[in-house]
Amino acid sequence: MPTSTNTRWTKKRDAKRDRLSRISSMIEGKFVQQDNIVSVLERVIEPYDRVILEGNNQKQASFLSKSLANASNEALHHLHLIMSSVSRPEHLDLFENEIADRLDFSFSGPQSTRIAQMIEDEEIKVGNIHTYIELYGRLFIDLIPNVALVAADQADANGNLYTGANTEETPTIVEATAFKNGIVIAQVNEIVDELPRVDIPSSWVDVIVLGDEPYQLEALFTRDPRHITEIQILMAMLAIRGVYEKHSVQSLNHGIGFNTAAIELLLPTYGESLNLRGKICKHWAANPHPTLIPAIESGWIDSIHSFGGEKGMEQYIAARPDVFFVGSDGTMRSNRTLCQMAGQYAVDLFIGSTLQMDYVGNSSTVVRGRLAGFGGAPNMGHDPKGRRHSTKAWLDMQKTGDELVRGRKLVVQMMETHQPGNRPVFVDQLDAIQVAKEANLGTPPVMIYADDVTHLVTEEGVAYLYKSDSPAERKEAIAAVAGVTELGMTSTARQKHRLREQGIIATTDDLEIDVKKSNRSLLAAKSIEELVMWSDGLYDPPEKFRSYWT
Amino acid sequence: MPTSTNTRWTKKRDAKRDRLSRISSMIEGKFVQQDNIVSVLERVIEPYDRVILEGNNQKQASFLSKSLANASNEALHHLHLIMSSVSRPEHLDLFENEIADRLDFSFSGPQSTRIAQMIEDEEIKVGNIHTYIELYGRLFIDLIPNVALVAADQADANGNLYTGANTEETPTIVEATAFKNGIVIAQVNEIVDELPRVDIPSSWVDVIVLGDEPYQLEALFTRDPRHITEIQILMAMLAIRGVYEKHSVQSLNHGIGFNTAAIELLLPTYGESLNLRGKICKHWAANPHPTLIPAIESGWIDSIHSFGGEKGMEQYIAARPDVFFVGSDGTMRSNRTLCQMAGQYAVDLFIGSTLQMDYVGNSSTVVRGRLAGFGGAPNMGHDPKGRRHSTKAWLDMQKTGDELVRGRKLVVQMMETHQPGNRPVFVDQLDAIQVAKEANLGTPPVMIYADDVTHLVTEEGVAYLYKSDSPAERKEAIAAVAGVTELGMTSTARQKHRLREQGIIATTDDLEIDVKKSNRSLLAAKSIEELVMWSDGLYDPPEKFRSYWT
Repeated sequence: MPTSTNTRWTKKRDAKRDRLSRISSMIEGKFVQQDNIVSVLERVIEPYDRVILEGNNQKQASFLSKSLANASNEALHHLHLIMSSVSRPEHLDLFENEIADRLDFSFSGPQSTRIAQMIEDEEIKVGNIHTYIELYGRLFIDLIPNVALVAADQADANGNLYTGANTEETPTIVEATAFKNGIVIAQVNEIVDELPRVDIPSSWVDVIVLGDEPYQLEALFTRDPRHITEIQILMAMLAIRGVYEKHSVQSLNHGIGFNTAAIELLLPTYGESLNLRGKICKHWAANPHPTLIPAIESGWIDSIHSFGGEKGMEQYIAARPDVFFVGSDGTMRSNRTLCQMAGQYAVDLFIGSTLQMDYVGNSSTVVRGRLAGFGGAPNMGHDPKGRRHSTKAWLDMQKTGDELVRGRKLVVQMMETHQPGNRPVFVDQLDAIQVAKEANLGTPPVMIYADDVTHLVTEEGVAYLYKSDSPAERKEAIAAVAGVTELGMTSTARQKHRLREQGIIATTDDLEIDVKKSNRSLLAAKSIEELVMWSDGLYDPPEKFRSYWT
Repeated sequence: MPTSTNTRWTKKRDAKRDRLSRISSMIEGKFVQQDNIVSVLERVIEPYDRVILEGNNQKQASFLSKSLANASNEALHHLHLIMSSVSRPEHLDLFENEIADRLDFSFSGPQSTRIAQMIEDEEIKVGNIHTYIELYGRLFIDLIPNVALVAADQADANGNLYTGANTEETPTIVEATAFKNGIVIAQVNEIVDELPRVDIPSSWVDVIVLGDEPYQLEALFTRDPRHITEIQILMAMLAIRGVYEKHSVQSLNHGIGFNTAAIELLLPTYGESLNLRGKICKHWAANPHPTLIPAIESGWIDSIHSFGGEKGMEQYIAARPDVFFVGSDGTMRSNRTLCQMAGQYAVDLFIGSTLQMDYVGNSSTVVRGRLAGFGGAPNMGHDPKGRRHSTKAWLDMQKTGDELVRGRKLVVQMMETHQPGNRPVFVDQLDAIQVAKEANLGTPPVMIYADDVTHLVTEEGVAYLYKSDSPAERKEAIAAVAGVTELGMTSTARQKHRLREQGIIATTDDLEIDVKKSNRSLLAAKSIEELVMWSDGLYDPPEKFRSYWT
């Protein structure tokens, strides 16, 4: 009988105790002084550590990221950073300053150009680009963090945290770190006597510091209706009539962008005229977009579960607890992990946009010189093959004659045939393939794979790609709605006729859409000001959206 | 400009206040007396409510489920029950007694025969059968609960909860309910002055009651090595050599069953002889199986994140915090949602077993007269198409010549060619198809779809199904390892030879496995007693597993 090897089994716990003992002179309870934070980070973090730095596309642990970038690279070097979003300049300064050298991440919108250059220059070794919950999953398996740097709204004297509307990913990354004897450091905007409610219990947190200013919070999901074009309104009519109504889409995700904002603002007008209220768009996995206000106020929407909060929407949300997820204290709780899970498994439809689509339907927002990543799109924009419940929309996608009666998620790509600058969206080969070679990625950063896309909406019509029998027919269907692009011009009148006859594509005529109506008067709100009016004055837009009307 | 419809937007919050006011004479703080629980349930729950009743395959809110079954069906009727697992007799009594009539669930192992009969008799209207996280996802979208009935280990006087090793699904279902103004009722085993740590904050909970006895906890993942057969040992050798070693599988999920228990017990013996320590099986999404102890003690395993706890493993886990997820208090925290997410996205391999597989590779544990559901298997046992990070194992599955370089998850089915009673596991048509018709399900309860299965391991060898080019070739490969079954006998020597040449199947000879060694002496532990010895006496097996050796 073999016996235990008598290895020490508490190395991580011992290491945590040692690290925290190095700051014993600087800490009271769990609290450290703002001025000491760089020194605290230099003592509790060690070279080669895996450090998860909170920063997703909304909330940023900005005081902690700035402080980490101010650390000495003699004390801290070769850090392996894990980040949902590479968003702030100092996120990349950390690599330039040789504090960090490895990176696993999901999204890099604002830094996508600089990050591409730094990877090419070998200043950053990229592990992989992930979806959000794929990255969170790895925090429990093979990317368990040594240290988490997170942001909260408030702490009480015991060290409990309130994260409120912007709870987002904080509980998940804290859980992965705290329960594997990692060290959790939180910046807070305020220290208060009593929290509205506890979002993260004190026993999960090691070090708390008051930030120099409130954490950075981006109003990323606010779209000013003034900028919605008539082409976007036409595409929104096509989507509502040709996709949402056709398949009775009851539950869905909308992301960022003017295309989907147009759909939201057409529900109380065009949708109402089609008598669709209560029949479509009742249950949402979505951020609290201001452009959802008219549909909510008109009684279209039963529930919205959110990934994060949205600046300016706080009072409106608090006044609409029947719709949003709100705690006993009256403020929202978002949860990026749970909303992504719901958006993956529990909604009928994902709709998104892309910068490039190849001729068979693969798409990516990664283009040459810009490594943007995807965030949650690939998670929600695929057919979740572990889904087993059925709805009308899901069953509509099944192949005829399949005795296993297996439906599919509706994955819709919606975009104009040309990008700004008149660059066609349809390309022979995705830039992603070349980018992967240059950045030495294991696999090209494709956002949505062709075999997952069920519908394509352009200003030319709707292509029902789920009905196509082969890649060749899919290509024909894409070409038929590709307009005046190289691909579009390969589509003959004869092909288009056949595809329309077979119901593989549909034009505004086929869908009985009155093109004359596709103008801005169809928008339920034509400006931020009108959104505020719809909200009974509860929506409080951020400063930068007020310039037009104050 | 339209204005708000002035609907009341706080209906759910008002209803919650009204419901709680009905028990104001019975509640002190958040606490109600045990004797009053039936009356409390009758007053805060209303007919037609959606009630989520905690009960997964380990922890059960057994005091609350018994109490609900004792309610009057004049007070409570037409409840829509949502349950991860239909496990206890009173779960179905609720339907017989006409307290509930609708059910959405995931798993019904112990009640699978009775539930099938009741559905046929139309005593239960089944919505859908789900995976766990699919069901949890719907709690935030279109199955938002009015009431949650959950179980915890301890509460403090303020109403904070400690759920410890069996945290499991509790935080997720509480979050879905509490933040949409539903009512959260928790049974606890103890009320204490100070919790070891807080798992669920007080402000998420409305009513707490001390259970009449500790909540039911099943040692579902304990497998006595005495019952492992030599055929299982042979299959385990095939899996280790032909799958784990071949593809360098570093991260994985093992579920329930003797097949995978045999693999676990062969790592420190057979695996060691192949010099595989540190090369395979380092990172796990798995419950804390006692049969993992020898591999842990031999230094094979870096980390295990768990769905739930396992009875008897508490002290061992507390002494191995480097491996398990353990809080600052020293006890484990499991999390079914996060572990399923990790098991879906972050591991290379899922391995499972089935009761039936059809000739092209679809499988199900649902057989005529038994509607068992699947729990987490379809979630982890499919290729997650939202995955974007790559590993050696994942890339091994890619199709040659695909410029998108898209790998796949390894989804392995491992089973003997015959079930107990000599019934072949391979069937022309899954019973699930007929069951779906009889139970009026939207879609047949298939556990793993053929196109997701990459490997099949039987006592005859390994079939590398991911290499097959067509359903016809996949059928040939399955037949080649199907032994003396109707399907197996269609396989000719010539076919087998070709499939071996092409590497689509492999036998023990091909894999250089010494069949003579496949006997019980290869098990690192041959009994529960030896597991206890490996654990230095820290593993404390439940009573029913001690009968053999005390």
